[in-house]
Formats: sequence, structure tokens, C-alpha cells
Amino acid sequence: MGAIEVMRALNDGGVKTRHPLEAVIWTNEEGNHFGIGTLGSGVAAGSLGTEILQTKDEQGLSLADWLRRYGQNPSQLTDARIPHGALAAYLELHIEQGPNLYETKVPIGVVQGIVGIKRWNCVVTGFANHAGTTPMNRRKDALAAASKDVLAVRDVVRAEEGSQVGNVGYVKVAPGAINVIPGRAEFPVELRDLDAAKVDRMWEHIQQRFAEVDKAENVETRCNLLDHSEPAHADANLQTAIREAAKSLGLATTDLPSLAGQDAQEIARIAPMAMIFVPSKDGISHSPKEFTSWQDVSNGTEVLYRSILLLDGQLDRK
Amino acid sequence: MGAIEVMRALNDGGVKTRHPLEAVIWTNEEGNHFGIGTLGSGVAAGSLGTEILQTKDEQGLSLADWLRRYGQNPSQLTDARIPHGALAAYLELHIEQGPNLYETKVPIGVVQGIVGIKRWNCVVTGFANHAGTTPMNRRKDALAAASKDVLAVRDVVRAEEGSQVGNVGYVKVAPGAINVIPGRAEFPVELRDLDAAKVDRMWEHIQQRFAEVDKAENVETRCNLLDHSEPAHADANLQTAIREAAKSLGLATTDLPSLAGQDAQEIARIAPMAMIFVPSKDGISHSPKEFTSWQDVSNGTEVLYRSILLLDGQLDRK
Repeated sequence: MGAIEVMRALNDGGVKTRHPLEAVIWTNEEGNHFGIGTLGSGVAAGSLGTEILQTKDEQGLSLADWLRRYGQNPSQLTDARIPHGALAAYLELHIEQGPNLYETKVPIGVVQGIVGIKRWNCVVTGFANHAGTTPMNRRKDALAAASKDVLAVRDVVRAEEGSQVGNVGYVKVAPGAINVIPGRAEFPVELRDLDAAKVDRMWEHIQQRFAEVDKAENVETRCNLLDHSEPAHADANLQTAIREAAKSLGLATTDLPSLAGQDAQEIARIAPMAMIFVPSKDGISHSPKEFTSWQDVSNGTEVLYRSILLLDGQLDRK
Repeated sequence: MGAIEVMRALNDGGVKTRHPLEAVIWTNEEGNHFGIGTLGSGVAAGSLGTEILQTKDEQGLSLADWLRRYGQNPSQLTDARIPHGALAAYLELHIEQGPNLYETKVPIGVVQGIVGIKRWNCVVTGFANHAGTTPMNRRKDALAAASKDVLAVRDVVRAEEGSQVGNVGYVKVAPGAINVIPGRAEFPVELRDLDAAKVDRMWEHIQQRFAEVDKAENVETRCNLLDHSEPAHADANLQTAIREAAKSLGLATTDLPSLAGQDAQEIARIAPMAMIFVPSKDGISHSPKEFTSWQDVSNGTEVLYRSILLLDGQLDRK
């Protein structure tokens, strides 16, 4: 919406940029049928290919089926690719989806980059047995071990300075009966940071902690990597332009990472990228309670407008 | 099987007891359709009434339907009740279902009683949020809290001397996604001991620990009692007879509680009760790996035979 308003303002004011400008509306992340948040940008940046045409939604319809329904030709999917170097700059205005700007009352966030995400699935194998007749000191309780593991993940993530995050979203226990000692527990681990080396270092520590838990609890824990996205760093020149644009409007800025995935992280593969964040009330996102004030929307749009003009003067079209 | 062998041996030897003797085969615990382990003994002791006739199995057939299928008359269910005081003594020979006798190589266990069981269901309410954008120090992670709770249950159960046990058989997390901070976690707590006051005391401590976790984790935990069976104590005279019988055979004994539920715990409502335990290999029960050697079966049967004769001499029929 900010991008369209900028285009409108440029047209209304008769401002001509040296570079051609395009506004893009990427695939709706929350609503798309295929569970791929960066479907449009992934195709544009070339990280998603024709293989995704066969991805099926819950109703068993494929992406190709849906494209046909909307009068599109699935075989032209890769025509949407943007060649590397075709864009001089990519800017994206977005709500923070976190509480930092809202709580510190800073109107503009200059995004340093989009965090890398690594996800593992872990299985703890203990021994299911009668919860009445098995003495407490003879148990191989997979849930007790997994509980220590869940807390170990958080300990390790909290132990380092910085804005890195980690999550264990669930634990699934088998056999899962009130009167049976858990024999198996399965849980995912997710780690995010702008620094891929920090993510790997944290995972090393977590694995050490899991090994200690295994020894103490007489169980075995095995983890395997589920998926992995590399961090995408924002372009330094573009960040500077955003900071200058905000300053010219008297708006304070903070540098911060995007801890959520973004379309910009796909575009970073093919072009210099930067993002402008505006506050999210209480940091809530992907929720009906998501809210950003009109004043903040307006501030972000002004910063986007001025950043484009600054960059248009600085950059050469490649 | 031991009881039938005892009857056979008495008949073969022409031994006449002063008291009439009956052998009973209770409902198969593992195989019955209705999830009630003590179905037969519960009806006999009067703790289960005609209300259970309407209990349905997985196929939607009621207990009444099944009784009719086997040519029985459901309306006669309560005719199976044994009046209080009608039995001078009830003895049961059983495998331990735990590892104590097997590991200490003691052939005969004299059961002190059958533990009471209390079960609660607990729900931890935190706040589900974006696992990327929510800083680590702003989370209300229901699974992190539940993990501390799981470990607190075990700590409290282990803190007291004795053979009491406690179990948390599973944790169910909502929304339960890899990239969402757990907003809700639900888990059951089961505590067993021969001393009902100890169970209540442990639960008090557990609740204190849960309250501390709630405060530290900024979540709310509520538990409600699911079910509750009182401990059933074995009769002291009957225990003495079992000990003497074993001694006369040169068999060592150990006094120990039954940490599993038993039919004898129902019969304890209407008659003096005691149980003879024999070793279970590796303590495994309710499993295809359950195993007791013929020597141990034979020892237990001899002890049952001699206990009956001892008691027959001592007890007056009521």
C-alpha cells in the first residue's frame, strides 16, 4: 500500500525518476494454499522452479490447477523470473511484526537483514513401561528428558548477547497414556539469527546439552535438519539512504534485524535490498490483533518516498 | 492358574478344609472392551453397579449387549455381588509386575497393600505468538513452563523415602506449530502410594512448585482431579500366614506394596485380603515380554497352598 501511495504521489507531483519504478504485490503469505510464505518472490528470484506447480493444497488441487482457474498458463511460471542484476535496488516497507519499535517509540526501523532460520526434528528414545510398578530410579522417561531438552534450547539461546531467538513448538509423546512412562518424545527446534555462524554455534551447544541429558536420563536423542534458510543482509548504501530520508523528516531510526522471513530475502539473491520497518502494536502479527497506526503508516510511506528519490540520484541503472 | 492347581492338589490328596474354598477367574484386564481393569471384582465387591451396563466399547456395543451375546441376563448383574462379611479371607497369587523380587532374587513377595492412585489433568495457559519476532524475554511459553512442571513432579516424588511413584504420560501443545510459541500445554499427573496422606502431601508440594513456575514463566496453570482410588491395605493376619508358609518351604520373603491396581483392592472392601507376589523377569508387565519362570510359579502355588491350610486352621468362618 505504501508503494502504491509513493507511485501516486510521484505521479501527482509530476516527479520523474531517472530509473523506472515498479510496485509489486507478492503472494499473500497468510492466505495462500501451499504453505510457502514467499511463493511469488521465490519464483521471481529463481529459488522456486516448475517443481512447485505440482504442490497440492488441502483439497488436492495443485498450484498448476489454481493458475489455470485464474486464467494463467502454468508453463509460463518461470517467465516471472527477474534476471540477476536487472534491478538497481529493491525497497520494502513492512510492519516490524515485533515489539521493539512500538515499545521504544522509535517510528522507523532500518532493517539490517533477514535472519537465517534452521529447523531440526529431534526424537528422544526411552522405554515405555508401567507407570505404577516401575521404580522411579529404573525409568527411561523420554518426556522427562525432552523437558530438559526444551529448557536447554532456551538456556543456550538466552546465553548469548543479541536478538537471536529459538523455539520448541511442541512435544509429541508416545505411547501417550496417563499410566504409561513415555517411551518416545519428538520435538522440533527452530533457531534464527542474522549471523549464520551464531546459529551453528548455538546448535553445537544445544547438541552438547542434549548429550548430557541423554547420559543423565539413560535415553538416546537424535536430531535431523528439517530446513534451512540463509540470512539475507540488507545493502549498506540502501540502509544509509533510508536513515538519511528519515533524518530529513525528523524521524528517529533504529537498526534491527527482521526475525520473520520476508519476500526481500528472496530478492536479496538478485538485487541490492533494504527494508523499512514501522511499529506493530504490542509486537503482534499474523493475528486479527495486528495493528499499525495511520501515523506510522504515513511515516513509513514518506521515508520510502524520500529514500527512492535519494537512491534515484545516487544509483546508476545496471 | 495357581488357585486351580491348589484346588486340584487338595482334591488329589483328599485334604478337607474346614472352610469352603472357591477359586475365581476375574475379568481379563488387558482384553476387556470397556477399559475397566477390575470389572468383575468391582461388580462382586459392589463398587460397580448397573450403570456400567450402558458403557459402550469402540464398536458402540454396550456391556449389556455383550452379556446377552454370551447368553447372560444383564438384569442379573448385581446378583454377582458378594455380601460384606461373607468371606473369611481372600488370597490372590500374582506376578509382581515390577522388578524388585526379580532383581533381589527373593522368590516370594508379601503384599502390604495396593496403592491408592490419584490423577489430575493440568492446563498451562501462556500466549501463542510469532516465534521469530517475539524477543526471548517477552515470551509466555506454555511448553517451557510445562517442561519445568514435568520435572517438578518427578523431583517431588523422588524427594521422599519410599516406593511411591509419579508419572506425566504426555504433554499436548497448542497451537503446536514449529514456528509458533506454545500458547497452551496440557498434561496429566498420576501419583501412587500405599499411604493416601503421602499422595496428598506430594500433590501439595507439586502445586507449590507449579505456582513458582507460573510466576517465573508468566503463565497460569490449573489442575483438576480426574480420578481417585483409595489405597487398600492387606490384612495383617493373612500377611503373617503367607510369611509362615514361605518360611516352612525355605523361601525368603519381602514385604512390598502393589504399585499396580489389583482385583484384590476391590475385594478389600468386603473381606480380609492378602496377595502373594512372584518375580517378573525384568519387571516387565502388560507386554508380550512378560515372563515368570515355572520355578517361581511353582513356589507361589506352594505358598498359596500352605497359606490356605494355615488360615483354615486359624480362622472361623463368619
